[in-house]
Amino acid sequence: MKRYSTEMAIIKALKECKDGYISGEDLARKSSVSRAAIWKQVKNLRDKGYSIEAVPRRGYRLISSPDLLLPEEIATVLKTEFIGRRIIHRNITGSTNDLAKELANGGAEEGTVVVAEEQSHGKGRLNRSWVSPPGGIWLSVILRPQVPPSEASRFTLLAGVAAAKAIETLGIKPEIKWPNDILIGGKKVCGILLELSAQPDRVDCLIMGFGVNANVDMNKIPQESRERAITLASFLGKEIDRRQLVADLLLKLENEYRRLIAGEWDSVIADWLSRCNTLHENISLITLQGVIEGEFVGVDELGAIQIKLPRGDVKTFSAGDVTVKKRLT
Amino acid sequence: MKRYSTEMAIIKALKECKDGYISGEDLARKSSVSRAAIWKQVKNLRDKGYSIEAVPRRGYRLISSPDLLLPEEIATVLKTEFIGRRIIHRNITGSTNDLAKELANGGAEEGTVVVAEEQSHGKGRLNRSWVSPPGGIWLSVILRPQVPPSEASRFTLLAGVAAAKAIETLGIKPEIKWPNDILIGGKKVCGILLELSAQPDRVDCLIMGFGVNANVDMNKIPQESRERAITLASFLGKEIDRRQLVADLLLKLENEYRRLIAGEWDSVIADWLSRCNTLHENISLITLQGVIEGEFVGVDELGAIQIKLPRGDVKTFSAGDVTVKKRLT
Repeated sequence: MKRYSTEMAIIKALKECKDGYISGEDLARKSSVSRAAIWKQVKNLRDKGYSIEAVPRRGYRLISSPDLLLPEEIATVLKTEFIGRRIIHRNITGSTNDLAKELANGGAEEGTVVVAEEQSHGKGRLNRSWVSPPGGIWLSVILRPQVPPSEASRFTLLAGVAAAKAIETLGIKPEIKWPNDILIGGKKVCGILLELSAQPDRVDCLIMGFGVNANVDMNKIPQESRERAITLASFLGKEIDRRQLVADLLLKLENEYRRLIAGEWDSVIADWLSRCNTLHENISLITLQGVIEGEFVGVDELGAIQIKLPRGDVKTFSAGDVTVKKRLT
Repeated sequence: MKRYSTEMAIIKALKECKDGYISGEDLARKSSVSRAAIWKQVKNLRDKGYSIEAVPRRGYRLISSPDLLLPEEIATVLKTEFIGRRIIHRNITGSTNDLAKELANGGAEEGTVVVAEEQSHGKGRLNRSWVSPPGGIWLSVILRPQVPPSEASRFTLLAGVAAAKAIETLGIKPEIKWPNDILIGGKKVCGILLELSAQPDRVDCLIMGFGVNANVDMNKIPQESRERAITLASFLGKEIDRRQLVADLLLKLENEYRRLIAGEWDSVIADWLSRCNTLHENISLITLQGVIEGEFVGVDELGAIQIKLPRGDVKTFSAGDVTVKKRLT
């Protein structure tokens, strides 16, 4: 824990003096370690991929940071109060949701974030796998709202609003597909997977997982899903700053979460509906019980989809896959 | 796995010949190991607490089994099809629910049971602790019903019915207190703690924990709860066969579970109501939002309590503590 914050302090000090040099003495003072310990800390940072120049009688200079979602990197741009104030980083893990669940069951506090450069067993809804090569943002947040399990579905919609708003900071207008996909031009750029541990009358923790195809190499996405996927980098024609997007995502999430807790669920729904890709369209909802066809007219209090059936009545469904009905032209 | 079933086969063979002896040769044949391996297996069993006599030219004889809830012991009396066909036994563990949760997250199959002689951090509802000294039955079952999280509360009631019916095999008529306590003469003999891992639209696993004060020494129950607790042994005036009770509990549970899955929820509720201690009584329900007073008139479709308020309307609550209203006489 100490080492983590010392490294963060050193990076902060190095970044603050930008193109200039900072003396070992100043660096030691700003990061509250002994002058003698600075060398070791700088070596640790170099091992992590930081390029740090050391010039006698001038001091240290940061040449470049590794393109990794390291806690000390995210911390320099993070504006949240509690989400992401503790970040666990892995170069590779099975699934950030699984690791977060483990930490949550062990008592990790609300707002703890798990982020990985790669997932070996990334997962999506309905036991689908989720390809998670380097360049993406594979991230899970531990939340502990005091709600019954039946209200958990609200947090899927809330996560969608947060993810959409974060992507909007890049000047993109994404759409949300019920319940939990974020699309650009009809192609998936981000998926959300919510899991929960609970007792029947109250949630113990929510694990909110985000998978963002940020700078993922399109060739790393399997052929069969490539047509339905898009990356932020391919859409923008340049790589994005993943650290900044993580910081933005966590901030948007914290804001939406506060709104929900404050009882402003209606305004979260309104933000969700205004970004929904199929509102008032004729859709097919594929459920385990069969295919429902009708007009997507909204979502209910708990985030379930409301479909107006051909005979005029509105029915509500809490699970399924939405596809837009092919029009016969 | 092999060793486990060999031991079970040896115990079964020893028990089958009751007071007589079985030759090493027969024992080897019945347990499908070499004649030479029998000695080692018998030593393992002795290490576990089995007293096994070996007499030259006559063979082996089982003198006594340890009073432990060992899988090989329960298996000899278990009549279920899938619940308890795999049992993990611990002399001591933090909480059988926690261990079961870990196993379930790792993919343990439906019906897996965790049982411990002692829990160091036994837990009840609402983060209460649950004292779990030797002599009790501290047991958790992993279930994987295909239901949404909102229906999880049904399984609390179902567990209560199963526990009550198992205790009834001892000739005792226990009562159920909403939602999850089993009482004898108004004192708690068994508690149930249900936990779940889920996605918003479907349960991944239920962990159904039972804590039965079977042969617990009343002096091991803390002073402050002793007045509200009872053990089966203290009520009956003699120790019960814990292995048999575990086998009965798992069988009753499997039966109730099958009924629920078959859509016979109404009959489970009927069994529950017929054992409920406060039906049609005036009760106080202590909730986080305050105390509700009224008549306990039933439970709804999801197992929530229905209370008829003094002004005549019926309200439903999914959480709270029931106490019988003190009568002013």
